[in-house]
Amino acid sequence: MDKIKVAIVGYGNIGRFALEAVDAASDMECAGIVRRDPAAGEHPELSGRKVVSDISALGYVDVAILAVPSRKVQETALKYLAMGISTVDSFDIHTDICALRSTLGEAASQSGAVSVISAGWDPGSDSVVRALMQGLAPKGISYTNFGPGRSMGHSVAAKAIAGVRDALSVTIPIGTGLHRRMVYVELEPGADASAVEKAILADPYFSHDETHVIPVDGIDALNDMGHGVNLVRKGVSGATHNQLLEFNMKINNPALTGQVLVMAARAAVRQRPGCYTMIEIPVIDMLEGDREQLVRALV
Amino acid sequence: MDKIKVAIVGYGNIGRFALEAVDAASDMECAGIVRRDPAAGEHPELSGRKVVSDISALGYVDVAILAVPSRKVQETALKYLAMGISTVDSFDIHTDICALRSTLGEAASQSGAVSVISAGWDPGSDSVVRALMQGLAPKGISYTNFGPGRSMGHSVAAKAIAGVRDALSVTIPIGTGLHRRMVYVELEPGADASAVEKAILADPYFSHDETHVIPVDGIDALNDMGHGVNLVRKGVSGATHNQLLEFNMKINNPALTGQVLVMAARAAVRQRPGCYTMIEIPVIDMLEGDREQLVRALV
Repeated sequence: MDKIKVAIVGYGNIGRFALEAVDAASDMECAGIVRRDPAAGEHPELSGRKVVSDISALGYVDVAILAVPSRKVQETALKYLAMGISTVDSFDIHTDICALRSTLGEAASQSGAVSVISAGWDPGSDSVVRALMQGLAPKGISYTNFGPGRSMGHSVAAKAIAGVRDALSVTIPIGTGLHRRMVYVELEPGADASAVEKAILADPYFSHDETHVIPVDGIDALNDMGHGVNLVRKGVSGATHNQLLEFNMKINNPALTGQVLVMAARAAVRQRPGCYTMIEIPVIDMLEGDREQLVRALV
Repeated sequence: MDKIKVAIVGYGNIGRFALEAVDAASDMECAGIVRRDPAAGEHPELSGRKVVSDISALGYVDVAILAVPSRKVQETALKYLAMGISTVDSFDIHTDICALRSTLGEAASQSGAVSVISAGWDPGSDSVVRALMQGLAPKGISYTNFGPGRSMGHSVAAKAIAGVRDALSVTIPIGTGLHRRMVYVELEPGADASAVEKAILADPYFSHDETHVIPVDGIDALNDMGHGVNLVRKGVSGATHNQLLEFNMKINNPALTGQVLVMAARAAVRQRPGCYTMIEIPVIDMLEGDREQLVRALV
């Protein structure tokens, strides 16, 4: 059977881990990496790989894994879909997912390609579990509790405060979907720690949560890519109350995102043209291996 | 939108809870209940319902929920599929799932109907989680730890031992997919407790597990429909080890099975003709409600 030919677009953290996941999949091969500047940075692991600025230099490609920031996903996906190349991304701006799905769905249908969007771990694989739990107990309340782990959005927001040289915001789950923010800040020389703290606490990113600001000598020594989730639902199956459901993960964050992108890339070549979120795809289509053997092993 | 017309075939524990789940679903209506003897037993909750011995007395039916023992599933499903009625079941003999899928798949394709098999909680919704975990960490080991809760198969096996009037075998998870069996036995008058214990420990249902036999005055006082599962996987995403995934449930067993059968019945009317296990169906197809609203709420 022909291997699925995958291009990786963007080579930050997610691109790097997506490449490892493609390499680990025996039904895929990496056609190459697409970067604005193919020579940027020191990446010994890319030696012997095709690194290009234009995907057409890679020859035939089935799927492009878009390891680009969420705000770049739509324009990047539209470019590749127009070329008939399927795309997968880990777009994570929850409020814009339906609009993206509609825009990319039209483009994909027109060119006969497939787009799988929001295929990270949340949104993504967590969404599959959330949807399943909703079905198992249709009445009830679900909570998604994130962490402990770094929040990129909150870290960037804290770093933007005057007097902050670098920042790390760690999300701590305190249950029922609420989170504590532990914000570690490396101050600019001469910055006023209490003014920085006040500004962070007043920032809309932090003002609704319990937030602690902790000055430190350096951020680099604190960095850790671990993250986690605790997804719970207590609800009613039929007329029976108190059904208790729970999903937990303790994971390396970009490694899991890279792996989910690979699951989505595999599923992309198995769907009809159009745009899909992960809850719209049979889980078996995301897995490597013979279909009947998977049913035998996993059902 | 027309409601999905559902017949319930069989009216034991599962049939009763499936009826409650159909009643709780606003996109479904129960066309009636099919029983060998429509008048059997005292069921005040069935007053005002159509209870028939032949499904054709119910008029048009989209899906038949087969709330029958696993060993009766194939013949029952073949009968309804031949009539063009889709079927769902909670067939749980793991080793025979692929054969059933093939047999029912052929029948369903011929008549243009759909069959969703092994749609309980294990096999069933657990299978969806197991498959997802396999995708998230393709290398690694999964364990399914059941309980605490009654094992029907083991209870029946214990009850078949000479000298046992009634028995309840409770499955206790001891981790890594291993289970302790707590076997409560109500003895026949004059039965030898130690001979019964010896026979149970030697029975192939019990001989491979840590088993404790406990004589009690009566089984009825111990009966409880609670059950649970702890599904764990530790594995590798891409090249990153020690990814820790876990799914837990504490649930009323037949209530959850009834609810999963309803999820499968809803999905059945949305698939192309053929036979499916739950890992072969998009989770969104199992859920009530508008598709775009579900994406907005759950992804």
